[in-house]
Amino acid sequence: MFQAKVKSETLKGIVDVVSTLVDEAKFNVNAKGVSLKAVDPAHVAMVDLKIDKSAFEEFAADETELGIDLDKIKEVLRLSRAGDIITLSQDEDKNRLVINVGNVTRRMNLVDTTGMSDPKVPNISLPAKVAVNSEELQKGIKAAESISDHIALIATAEGFEMISEGDTDSASLKLTKDMLVSLECKENVRSLFPLDYFSNMIRAIPSGTVVSMSIGNDYPVKLEFAIADGKGTVDYLLAPRIESD
Amino acid sequence: MFQAKVKSETLKGIVDVVSTLVDEAKFNVNAKGVSLKAVDPAHVAMVDLKIDKSAFEEFAADETELGIDLDKIKEVLRLSRAGDIITLSQDEDKNRLVINVGNVTRRMNLVDTTGMSDPKVPNISLPAKVAVNSEELQKGIKAAESISDHIALIATAEGFEMISEGDTDSASLKLTKDMLVSLECKENVRSLFPLDYFSNMIRAIPSGTVVSMSIGNDYPVKLEFAIADGKGTVDYLLAPRIESD
Amino acid sequence: MFQAKVKSETLKGIVDVVSTLVDEAKFNVNAKGVSLKAVDPAHVAMVDLKIDKSAFEEFAADETELGIDLDKIKEVLRLSRAGDIITLSQDEDKNRLVINVGNVTRRMNLVDTTGMSDPKVPNISLPAKVAVNSEELQKGIKAAESISDHIALIATAEGFEMISEGDTDSASLKLTKDMLVSLECKENVRSLFPLDYFSNMIRAIPSGTVVSMSIGNDYPVKLEFAIADGKGTVDYLLAPRIESD
Repeated sequence: MFQAKVKSETLKGIVDVVSTLVDEAKFNVNAKGVSLKAVDPAHVAMVDLKIDKSAFEEFAADETELGIDLDKIKEVLRLSRAGDIITLSQDEDKNRLVINVGNVTRRMNLVDTTGMSDPKVPNISLPAKVAVNSEELQKGIKAAESISDHIALIATAEGFEMISEGDTDSASLKLTKDMLVSLECKENVRSLFPLDYFSNMIRAIPSGTVVSMSIGNDYPVKLEFAIADGKGTVDYLLAPRIESD
Repeated sequence: MFQAKVKSETLKGIVDVVSTLVDEAKFNVNAKGVSLKAVDPAHVAMVDLKIDKSAFEEFAADETELGIDLDKIKEVLRLSRAGDIITLSQDEDKNRLVINVGNVTRRMNLVDTTGMSDPKVPNISLPAKVAVNSEELQKGIKAAESISDHIALIATAEGFEMISEGDTDSASLKLTKDMLVSLECKENVRSLFPLDYFSNMIRAIPSGTVVSMSIGNDYPVKLEFAIADGKGTVDYLLAPRIESD
Repeated sequence: MFQAKVKSETLKGIVDVVSTLVDEAKFNVNAKGVSLKAVDPAHVAMVDLKIDKSAFEEFAADETELGIDLDKIKEVLRLSRAGDIITLSQDEDKNRLVINVGNVTRRMNLVDTTGMSDPKVPNISLPAKVAVNSEELQKGIKAAESISDHIALIATAEGFEMISEGDTDSASLKLTKDMLVSLECKENVRSLFPLDYFSNMIRAIPSGTVVSMSIGNDYPVKLEFAIADGKGTVDYLLAPRIESD
């Protein structure tokens, strides 16, 4: 059983961070809220999402799994405006999700979740932790776009840097310690990532969000941030590319 | 002879409702105003337009026919802003329409109207009449778009519903009697229509317009609404699709 | 040596007028400022640009040539907002241009300028000179777009006209003397130009700019206007098409 009311923008925030990696996803629902773990088809990136029931205007649920085609939720969101309340309810008999926005009712078949196993989220401990406003990361990505397919994340005791290097050109964003929300750095670290994945992840994060990045040497990066007005958390994990120089 | 001045937005409203169905059209002009009847190339839909001369800032005409390429009028409209006055005059010697917007003069050959006969508008009487704000219809269409190629219009004594049903999903807009401008319904009716035609018609209607829909059972729908600040009327007729269930 | 700070919008204005004709350009820099002369690949149009060092917030340079890929400057401009200060500095050792916008650093290889000779700007004296606001020219171009590939510029003692004539349609913009900033016209003149070139040039001129056009009979047109808040000047020259009627 699942029955909830949620603000349009809250639902949009949830869908945005997940649809960056997968088209269909299994949402685990119980009396406390909603959670989801998913890996992209190429097994390069992972999302680990937890939303407390307090993020919803109303929330009532037994333990259940909802297999959802995220594009269909986006279609419904396009019918709503910020501030609109969206009603979601599971129709267990017909294995459907019923969504109401204003006078519009949308019914959609739930996706079969057999074979959608929850990936194990690795417990990693990394030597550097950089907290920064998402706008800064967006700027760094925009600068890197025409230069290369990769982006290096670098942390030192002095600050954080994003570098993209091509054959003739390079672009970098350098943030000294005072421009960061916080910086812990036990040793100098540098890891290289596929720009398209990193860019899509950063774009899914709302402007004005503080993103905490855990960085190592040639190691996955972990991005942690809050969504749903602080009632939910997202962890993104992205596998590194090994530098060939 | 035809010579008129008209507000940019009034001319745009006229062109929008007609160009939804045809690229070229024959406008019948006389001393009282302008009228037009046209059927789309697939003979699925019809438009019946009447504009009183009072919709124009200035208007002087003898009985004449003007064959007009509507795309060319749209090009001229793109040179103008709301509130601009557009001058139209027939150059009978050269069989041209001369249009002035500000300092720009556009001359265009009139289209040959031989063979553009006025279609007969059927006089239909239908058991249900629903008057509703065009925004509501726009919402219903947007919801239906990704679901199916058809949309059903349903009226009962309780209200009006638009339903689109696909293989796995459905979308509906339900408006109870109190959400409608008016409702007359002698019997429950339902007709199915091609979504693309219905959608294009609804999109051609300015927001904030009250649309009166006459609906029957597996019968054409008639949409009536005012344009040109109430100085003109449009009737759209759309043929039904027969339901196969 | 070249080292400068410049407002984002000033740099954008410079790049816009040059990139209309060429993708890569040789900027001649000396202690007094920056200049550039370039011909488009088809040798139909020419740009002659002079920017005084006072157009820059800071400026220090020895005589040098900078071969620049203008698309790369546009990418950097997309990272900035109006009012942002952009720092440009030549890295002579690596033959690079280093650009800073906020915390972003972009390094780009300079383009080889061997073979980029400065074209000679012909010294032409023409019988008519028309000064007009760039918005008016933009309107005339928009009106001409769907009519023909050519546009005629006409000046008489009474005013200025832009005419585009197709097989069935024509569009013209007519400005009487009182609608012009100034008009000197010793004899009636008319020249025909390729619309795409003329249109691209006019679009590169900021709105609200007074453009001085020198026009002859079947002769190149010269467009002169100020950029960089009056601290720079641009001359465009465009070759005529010979009329076949």
